[in-house]
Amino acid sequence: MRTALTDMLGVDVPLVGFNRSPGVVAEVTRAGGFGVLAATSYSPEELDVQLTWIEERVQGRPYGVDLLVPATTTVGDPADLVASLRAQIPAEHIEFVRGLLERYGVDPGDLSRGFGAADDQVEGIAPTGVEALLDVAFSHDISLVANALGPPPPSLVERGRKAGVAVAALVGRAEHALRQLDAGVDLLVAQGTEAGGHTGTVATMVLTPEIVHIAGDTPVLAAGGIASGAQMAAALALGAAGVWCGSVWLNSVEDITPVHVKRKFQTAASTDTVRSRTRTGKPARQLRSAWHDEWERPGSPEPLGMPLQMMLAKDAWQRIDAAAEAGAEGARELESFFVGQVVGSFEEPRPTARIVAEIAAECEERIAGLWRML
Amino acid sequence: MRTALTDMLGVDVPLVGFNRSPGVVAEVTRAGGFGVLAATSYSPEELDVQLTWIEERVQGRPYGVDLLVPATTTVGDPADLVASLRAQIPAEHIEFVRGLLERYGVDPGDLSRGFGAADDQVEGIAPTGVEALLDVAFSHDISLVANALGPPPPSLVERGRKAGVAVAALVGRAEHALRQLDAGVDLLVAQGTEAGGHTGTVATMVLTPEIVHIAGDTPVLAAGGIASGAQMAAALALGAAGVWCGSVWLNSVEDITPVHVKRKFQTAASTDTVRSRTRTGKPARQLRSAWHDEWERPGSPEPLGMPLQMMLAKDAWQRIDAAAEAGAEGARELESFFVGQVVGSFEEPRPTARIVAEIAAECEERIAGLWRML
Repeated sequence: MRTALTDMLGVDVPLVGFNRSPGVVAEVTRAGGFGVLAATSYSPEELDVQLTWIEERVQGRPYGVDLLVPATTTVGDPADLVASLRAQIPAEHIEFVRGLLERYGVDPGDLSRGFGAADDQVEGIAPTGVEALLDVAFSHDISLVANALGPPPPSLVERGRKAGVAVAALVGRAEHALRQLDAGVDLLVAQGTEAGGHTGTVATMVLTPEIVHIAGDTPVLAAGGIASGAQMAAALALGAAGVWCGSVWLNSVEDITPVHVKRKFQTAASTDTVRSRTRTGKPARQLRSAWHDEWERPGSPEPLGMPLQMMLAKDAWQRIDAAAEAGAEGARELESFFVGQVVGSFEEPRPTARIVAEIAAECEERIAGLWRML
Repeated sequence: MRTALTDMLGVDVPLVGFNRSPGVVAEVTRAGGFGVLAATSYSPEELDVQLTWIEERVQGRPYGVDLLVPATTTVGDPADLVASLRAQIPAEHIEFVRGLLERYGVDPGDLSRGFGAADDQVEGIAPTGVEALLDVAFSHDISLVANALGPPPPSLVERGRKAGVAVAALVGRAEHALRQLDAGVDLLVAQGTEAGGHTGTVATMVLTPEIVHIAGDTPVLAAGGIASGAQMAAALALGAAGVWCGSVWLNSVEDITPVHVKRKFQTAASTDTVRSRTRTGKPARQLRSAWHDEWERPGSPEPLGMPLQMMLAKDAWQRIDAAAEAGAEGARELESFFVGQVVGSFEEPRPTARIVAEIAAECEERIAGLWRML
């Protein structure tokens, strides 16, 4: 297939695979698509190791990274920032999470002392932390940097231009797209409300043509609700130059999501996700579980903003994940992860390369089928 | 174009146009699509007049009607049912709506006495009322009866079989589709969350292939987010045999929606709708306005169920519509109507026939464009 995306990135299949597992990223690229590593939770050292590993696997084929790069560049010690943020988490919220964990038999530990687990990630989105991650990324043979946190700073756009690295941005509404285009991005990803993770309210069917109309010559990928060749063909019909898939890889054999979460995904219906602020502070789609029921109960506190809610929740989630892994029943009731409405289509896990091949083949079949309708 | 829908209904374009304006219904059919009259708010006498008018316009071309037919057939006097329901509306809710209208300068009238305006509609969904409407519909040359209120009763399916009238059902999730198939419907409409009116939570991009997979040989139409040929091509790529469009006609010249509501639609963005229970008691997508802000304010009552909330709201909405028509500023702030997220694409109103022709032409262009990508 040939689209503006295959031309821009030099790939065979206009399909971007977004995932935090280096194995998935490498396999998407090796199968003819374009793998993008969700790198926000890596330290610079970890990122360096992972990108080196990916490059050994892909042998010159193109891939990219996804970071949270803030538009404003304040200066300061990340440790000070973390301490200052931590002090802003109300005692009521800490007590609520402690009580929630205890009710489900998960050891809350000494939550009041820390949330240490989330500190790395906060450092990663603090300006100095991001610069270190960007330095690592640009020292590798990347073809694309994606940023989901507002418009990229001019320094990133310039850096991308110089290095021949495309800068991509995820958008959920028209105004965001206009801001991203003003900032000079090379590629827009129109992400519909059905997507996993942070999403807006507008569905892919409506959002994609709206963003394509605004974007002019800038290529637009469709994201949200795309896990099959039929859905990829639909996205191309809407004017997208390709698709950005996230959730589908969570059911691949290379994905690092814990096996008991994957099993929950496999039995979930498309109606079993919820767009909730309880995990990061911003609306993000995830599998509905007892965790969300607890936060929605009358008397529960309102979720905090980002990054406070993320700091509050992330340490709790590490404890929940560990307890669920160890077989604790209550923890498994709470267990969840970011996933889109396509979770309802998950069956047995498949190798990533096979998923790419099947999506591409079905997409071509669907297009041929449409042609025969005329 | 040729699909299972064009074969089943004998139309040129696999596009169903759903609207309460007889003029829109007739024009969709005359333009080669299939018009369906939203007939729930008509009395039997009115319906008879409207269907006679439509038939004069379409001259033998096929069209259908949409009713709310309950699956259970209790017997009783509709007047008793209305009185019994009216008595169940809490005084708190009546006072809240009265206060709301007064704050926006709309005369609430004597709300405590009646909600008379809604009585016709309640009679229309009471079993005896529906039977009278069905008798009228089957005395005309209809080709399809659609039902949005759960599975059709066996009597309706049988009546449809005998008369050669297809029975269609709108579904928003897989379980509903299974129940409709068990009841023997001839056509399923998979309606995504982005649609106007009553909707579920799953987006068209995800719901359509899910329902197509379940439906086997039963044709499936996609609804929600479809107002252009690009979106129609996308729906066909997802496996739909055609599309069911509602919102797009609200911006046609034949549509009977008041002109000041249409103007609000034309300036609205795709993010300006809300899925709210405040108008009918069930989640229905509509244009967000001051009405919804008032119901969401802390201290406002929870919306009632259906049909109580519909009875409570409908009389208020007749007063709001009338006051807005007369130019009252406050009423125009409250003013709203059911519409999907495609409202963001509304520009100048076009004749219905031109909308059908443009959708069909763009759909074919998009399919040809996809073919060239291969």
